[in-house]
Amino acid sequence: MSIATVILAAGKGTRMNSDIPKVLHPIAGAPMLVHALQAARSLEPAGMVVVAGHGAEAVTQVVQEYDEETQVVVQDEQLGTGHAVQQARAALDGFDGTVIVLYADTPFVRPETLQAMIDARSTQDVVVLGFEATDPGRYGRLKMAGETLEAIVEFNDATEAERAITLCNSGVVACDAATLFSLLDAVTNDNAAGEYYLTDIIGLARARGLSAGVVTCPQAETLGINSRAELAAADALFQQAARATAMEDGVTLLDPASIYFAYDTVIGRDTVIEPHVFFGPEVTIESGARIRAFSHLEGCHVARGGVVGPYARLRPGAELSEDVRVGNFVEIKNATIDAGAKVNHLSYIGDAFVGAGANIGAGTITCNYDGVLKHHTHIGARAFIGSNTMLVAPVSIGNEAMTASGSVITSDVEDGALAIARAHQTEKPGMARKLMQMLRAKKARQTRGN
Amino acid sequence: MSIATVILAAGKGTRMNSDIPKVLHPIAGAPMLVHALQAARSLEPAGMVVVAGHGAEAVTQVVQEYDEETQVVVQDEQLGTGHAVQQARAALDGFDGTVIVLYADTPFVRPETLQAMIDARSTQDVVVLGFEATDPGRYGRLKMAGETLEAIVEFNDATEAERAITLCNSGVVACDAATLFSLLDAVTNDNAAGEYYLTDIIGLARARGLSAGVVTCPQAETLGINSRAELAAADALFQQAARATAMEDGVTLLDPASIYFAYDTVIGRDTVIEPHVFFGPEVTIESGARIRAFSHLEGCHVARGGVVGPYARLRPGAELSEDVRVGNFVEIKNATIDAGAKVNHLSYIGDAFVGAGANIGAGTITCNYDGVLKHHTHIGARAFIGSNTMLVAPVSIGNEAMTASGSVITSDVEDGALAIARAHQTEKPGMARKLMQMLRAKKARQTRGN
Amino acid sequence: MSIATVILAAGKGTRMNSDIPKVLHPIAGAPMLVHALQAARSLEPAGMVVVAGHGAEAVTQVVQEYDEETQVVVQDEQLGTGHAVQQARAALDGFDGTVIVLYADTPFVRPETLQAMIDARSTQDVVVLGFEATDPGRYGRLKMAGETLEAIVEFNDATEAERAITLCNSGVVACDAATLFSLLDAVTNDNAAGEYYLTDIIGLARARGLSAGVVTCPQAETLGINSRAELAAADALFQQAARATAMEDGVTLLDPASIYFAYDTVIGRDTVIEPHVFFGPEVTIESGARIRAFSHLEGCHVARGGVVGPYARLRPGAELSEDVRVGNFVEIKNATIDAGAKVNHLSYIGDAFVGAGANIGAGTITCNYDGVLKHHTHIGARAFIGSNTMLVAPVSIGNEAMTASGSVITSDVEDGALAIARAHQTEKPGMARKLMQMLRAKKARQTRGN
Repeated sequence: MSIATVILAAGKGTRMNSDIPKVLHPIAGAPMLVHALQAARSLEPAGMVVVAGHGAEAVTQVVQEYDEETQVVVQDEQLGTGHAVQQARAALDGFDGTVIVLYADTPFVRPETLQAMIDARSTQDVVVLGFEATDPGRYGRLKMAGETLEAIVEFNDATEAERAITLCNSGVVACDAATLFSLLDAVTNDNAAGEYYLTDIIGLARARGLSAGVVTCPQAETLGINSRAELAAADALFQQAARATAMEDGVTLLDPASIYFAYDTVIGRDTVIEPHVFFGPEVTIESGARIRAFSHLEGCHVARGGVVGPYARLRPGAELSEDVRVGNFVEIKNATIDAGAKVNHLSYIGDAFVGAGANIGAGTITCNYDGVLKHHTHIGARAFIGSNTMLVAPVSIGNEAMTASGSVITSDVEDGALAIARAHQTEKPGMARKLMQMLRAKKARQTRGN
Repeated sequence: MSIATVILAAGKGTRMNSDIPKVLHPIAGAPMLVHALQAARSLEPAGMVVVAGHGAEAVTQVVQEYDEETQVVVQDEQLGTGHAVQQARAALDGFDGTVIVLYADTPFVRPETLQAMIDARSTQDVVVLGFEATDPGRYGRLKMAGETLEAIVEFNDATEAERAITLCNSGVVACDAATLFSLLDAVTNDNAAGEYYLTDIIGLARARGLSAGVVTCPQAETLGINSRAELAAADALFQQAARATAMEDGVTLLDPASIYFAYDTVIGRDTVIEPHVFFGPEVTIESGARIRAFSHLEGCHVARGGVVGPYARLRPGAELSEDVRVGNFVEIKNATIDAGAKVNHLSYIGDAFVGAGANIGAGTITCNYDGVLKHHTHIGARAFIGSNTMLVAPVSIGNEAMTASGSVITSDVEDGALAIARAHQTEKPGMARKLMQMLRAKKARQTRGN
Repeated sequence: MSIATVILAAGKGTRMNSDIPKVLHPIAGAPMLVHALQAARSLEPAGMVVVAGHGAEAVTQVVQEYDEETQVVVQDEQLGTGHAVQQARAALDGFDGTVIVLYADTPFVRPETLQAMIDARSTQDVVVLGFEATDPGRYGRLKMAGETLEAIVEFNDATEAERAITLCNSGVVACDAATLFSLLDAVTNDNAAGEYYLTDIIGLARARGLSAGVVTCPQAETLGINSRAELAAADALFQQAARATAMEDGVTLLDPASIYFAYDTVIGRDTVIEPHVFFGPEVTIESGARIRAFSHLEGCHVARGGVVGPYARLRPGAELSEDVRVGNFVEIKNATIDAGAKVNHLSYIGDAFVGAGANIGAGTITCNYDGVLKHHTHIGARAFIGSNTMLVAPVSIGNEAMTASGSVITSDVEDGALAIARAHQTEKPGMARKLMQMLRAKKARQTRGN
């Protein structure tokens, strides 16, 4: 069966108390909308449509960065979920399979659940995703007659008996495209809110003699996000699941609760992650590596045997080959560190290549920015960069070359050569004691002056 | 009605197992006594008195730093709460309004609760703060006759029937000053502990035909702190509330449980706080800033659009104007960073002014201390400080001036000038390889020697 | 009574999903096997035997590092717990006291519990450690007749009535050596798994008219570890207990949940540990010190009055005397820092001695590694090391000597002398502006070129 997804992402999210559209607030390093897009994409749909509204421009940009083929349609006025889905009609022109309506602020519906809805379509014209609520509160209720969904009853319209129902409506719906839009045409805004409700299609479908059914999932999957507290709770749930999965996959997490994953973090077996590690998006780590405490990784790769941190920051474009060591207070950006190289202390390596087996001394800085442009530094294999070497890019250090500590290197250094840029040491006997005496006397005068 | 507050802060806190007086142990960056002082001050009282005892000198210092007008009286011997309040008598000489007795180790009573006690004073001579306990344990019980408080019954003296009462005594009392001290004069120490109990005034008041009533609050407000574990629990409660309030106010907190607030942290709307951020006292952050992971802020200000961290330390006196960037492994102390300036990597900027749009290279250090005195560094607007520049203060760098990387700058630099203090680079071909061969040979000899 | 312990440590731990033997996975910085060894050693046994199997080589190495006298025997095939204990027979040849069988993957049985088992041996031939399970699940059940243990019934073999028993088997057993091995000789592998079960000795003992009894402990002590999630849970339990103990001992923990202890961390009274601090093994801290946020300590000592961090890394061999200050982004390794010395910012001090009262400027680096060998740096008392000084080891700085900031020090400096290795500052008026114009023009050309 051919599938298309429509993701409703138009809401303002007043309770977020934010200038940023609700669906762009992040969970685990990605806007919640991206989580919904991932769930939708897992179905390999023929088409994907996002209905934007508040902050449509920003929402469109996020969608296009995620996937150029997903269409964005704009709902200028927020006239209800039924009206929102109608906006996707033109975008789905000619599509004759099953449409699934999803919500950007309910991003945790699992692919398996959506697949179950698609499967249920083989026997039902309309399929609704429901859940058994421990406290049904003000959710819409799913009124069943045996296996058949008779109607979705809004809480406000529900009788005492209907309110006793604990099977609730998630809002997620699957329906044949032609049927969906035909039913939506019949939906009216004749209700207290003056809105067009998507849920009204069930009653209309039943009235036309169409069949309707329900697929259920755990309530956690249907968690909606309406405030920053709910956002934080959703993120916490995501983290909990990500940690559990990593541990099942053979990753050792020390103090898992202190480790923050991104939505796409990939870590190999028998790699150890120490406490207080932060993963931003696009990090991959191979097996048998160790990420030490207080490290911060984004957009980088660590090959097997790597040891990173504590206090290492790997920024986008950091590529560490096998057995590389990056130590404390070190920042690596847009740089390849070849096998077995070491950058152990207090360094900034940006826009650079560091050759295999090279040793980068403490305090080394690639001076990659001249105030206007960025330049590249090349360090050869087995080179030894002395402590506090400034590498003024563009510059190239040869294989097995060496720089004396404290040197500012502005010209290329040949293979096997030693480069020095250093003043001669002179000594003034007794001068330190005299200076201190003078300074203390000065301070004493100042103190008396006060 | 005129108000005065008496805060009892004399206890030793044996269970704290500490040389520091109990009431000076911190919650969210402030001694618990300061939390109590803040609650008291919220009532805009005509007078505030703290009754000190153990560690009176240190307690007095904290009170005076908080507010010079608050009086401290010393209770030399700890003879009970009634005796403690008596010590405040001289300090309140001439005051004829309502006295509220508070406890430094019960610092979370909310201003609204205290206001409700004051309001209740209009119909009651004595007002006691009570709470419904889920497990009343050994708390004193509030024995009511309708709306009237008949007596406070200590657990040890309570009958079976009285122990079944779940309305318990917090110890907080509000009473007309003259009445309070008159009642206290009648309190005796005729009990097992040989102490003068403040709670005895209720029975005495009722015997004199005075009225007594109760105001209730949630048990959490009356939480007393007697051990470090209880201190940690109180801090955790404070943090939970601070995080919830920040999120309601429109602050995005990633992994809120890993963010530690001070009692006075102020953060603007749509500012993002990443995981593992620590706030010490006196931090204000405007809207739309971003505090990245592992940052540590105290006594500083971040204006809108600022990006701080990861691993940035802003110390007292750090003032960041709009759109400033402070990056990783950077320490800023007593320094103003003007709009749009950048200090991105591995730097120490102390006792300094950094002009608008200036770019401070990696490894820059303001050498502000000569061993005796501290000196100031001035960096002009749009200046470009090369990597690893030492700025030996006092020193001034002009607008749009530049320093070559690796320079030690000891003299002022004019506007638009380039300053260099750098040795010439020389190269010794083949020398690196020779050196390594020699070192390896030496090591081999040493190894054989072992 | 003479005691010997046998620790079973042969299991593969398939559910760990790891190439590392299960018993070597760490809890609080030590392999779980080491925790079991510590529990065993607390009994001051005459002999200790570890039965290794999977990863026997690595297991043997860990045991030998812990204690050279503990014997390791290898169980080549995993034929059941009874068979495993049999492997210890030769190692215990001639021992005629009580043998206690422990499990490396059940490392939290307390010494008090084991002592209670030994005490119970005075009236019972065989003593089994049991626990009352809230949910007995598939645990073996202890079938009692009064105070006498009749049999251990495996869940699979249990009747409905036996499954209702909530007293469960931990597997820990104490028995006279000769009796134990005599009973084990009678155990067969005539069961579904084809294994020799240690538990079978109870039934055999009772059949021989020997007495058997039970000592009970809380279920938490018998927690077995079979997956990384259970490992993390066990570590969390350990941390919770370690934090509670520290607080009882008078240590102030700010946000205790963010502080990670090692199994052997020792901290003095009234020392403050701020949030997000990580302790590796072998750390001792005296009273009245302060470990600030985001610090990372391993194998080091901090004497009273020390202030460390934030963002300080103390590596093995860091020894801080009284009142030392180590500040942000500072790494100390294999170095003694004498009383009152300060290393406040962005420094690496390795293989060094820093004299009393010395002040180490920001950006100081001990260049201790020449690419092959490590060398030592000596800094005298009250020396003043200017910012960004490179100390090229081996090198010695005299008492009260001084180095100019930005100097590379390659030769020893006398007491009281000032050493300088610095280029002269020159200034090129207007050059900075010209350079920037050129760079901007170049960028503009490049941009047009694109």
